[in-house]
Amino acid sequence: MKKLEQLYEGKAKKVFATDVDGVVIVDYKDDATAFNGEKKGTITGKGAINNRMTNYVFQQLEKEGVPTHFVEELSDRETAVKKVSIVPLEVIVRNVAAGSFSKRMGVEEGKQLLCPILEFSYKDDDLGDPFINDDYALALGLATQEEIDTIKSYTRKINEFLMKYFLNAGMKLIDFKIEFGKLADGTIILADEISPDTCRLWDVETNEKLDKDRFRRDMGNVEEAYNEVFKRLGLA
Amino acid sequence: MKKLEQLYEGKAKKVFATDVDGVVIVDYKDDATAFNGEKKGTITGKGAINNRMTNYVFQQLEKEGVPTHFVEELSDRETAVKKVSIVPLEVIVRNVAAGSFSKRMGVEEGKQLLCPILEFSYKDDDLGDPFINDDYALALGLATQEEIDTIKSYTRKINEFLMKYFLNAGMKLIDFKIEFGKLADGTIILADEISPDTCRLWDVETNEKLDKDRFRRDMGNVEEAYNEVFKRLGLA
Repeated sequence: MKKLEQLYEGKAKKVFATDVDGVVIVDYKDDATAFNGEKKGTITGKGAINNRMTNYVFQQLEKEGVPTHFVEELSDRETAVKKVSIVPLEVIVRNVAAGSFSKRMGVEEGKQLLCPILEFSYKDDDLGDPFINDDYALALGLATQEEIDTIKSYTRKINEFLMKYFLNAGMKLIDFKIEFGKLADGTIILADEISPDTCRLWDVETNEKLDKDRFRRDMGNVEEAYNEVFKRLGLA
Repeated sequence: MKKLEQLYEGKAKKVFATDVDGVVIVDYKDDATAFNGEKKGTITGKGAINNRMTNYVFQQLEKEGVPTHFVEELSDRETAVKKVSIVPLEVIVRNVAAGSFSKRMGVEEGKQLLCPILEFSYKDDDLGDPFINDDYALALGLATQEEIDTIKSYTRKINEFLMKYFLNAGMKLIDFKIEFGKLADGTIILADEISPDTCRLWDVETNEKLDKDRFRRDMGNVEEAYNEVFKRLGLA
């Protein structure tokens, strides 16, 4: 597979064309941003960790019946993935109150929710990725009911898998964000990444934060946290 | 029925105890507030209009199979209603983009939505009545799935009835807010009010605003708009 011209540069990844039809290469950067790009920094080694962790998890999820964009890991930071058009919804799952949810709802960080919350944000940087509900997605033509049902069903499966996966490594999955893409034929598949950038992970004993909140909140030991997650998952 | 002590004073209504078990009296005020109470004023005659309009609409909705708290109109401003515990959800329906929705979503006011949007806010003044989805209501114990299903089913019926009802009087129903209550036995019924305070109503030809937005936005002719709605509905 030949890596051709850059198609896109996002906050944490670059995407390149290839000579294979329907396949692109994602290249994970060490760049970190938060608060819709207002805070910027670097987390050394993050790109390689997020690349390998995502690829491992995506392959496990395939076995659980969740189709993903994963094709082949090409290097530490580069992975060949299926080309998709991204569904303009950020899909967020919350098992425990934290972050913006805690602030908006007046619920203490760390409080266990009675059931997992699945929520959508409309992916639009200019609008600040506003929180929406299913009806918004339908009324604004962002997704069809069938697509929403598929996304929700996969997302619940992903949450169940990830909760167990992280718990086995001594971590609680507080919340996470995923994105889905559509293949040319309309098939919905999991895209983007699953990593400490996109998951809140707390040590199961101490509640120590092992995720991007260390960067967002200037808590220090950011690289150490990413490495710790990587090591606990047996990926280092 | 005897009007006894005041139980509660809200932004637009007072509630009094009565000597009849399970019945209270609501007393509609002319007080108007907006932006979570930040803007305050008076709309002369509003209390009487909202009382009579709500009572008329609620009786029509009963015929459509939507149970309501209505018992008996006692005077211009006073109505006997069934005592309920209010479900802590504001139920909002949007047929056309307007107000906070337009701002948050970057959609021009007046744009027809592909389908009606039904959304919930968590009734909590301190938090500013935050927008939530069904999962939030379940995860925070605000309502059960059965209650949510009942509320949604009634709300869709109410929207269909109101759209026709207002259109027959030359007005487009842009959006509206309703609240539901629970009887002692858990039965969900429509409570609160349906009026120009809680509905956005635009003239079907000119798009002139005939609702509380005239107060919110200092557009003038506020009383005239409330009286116009009242007259068009044949209630004056």
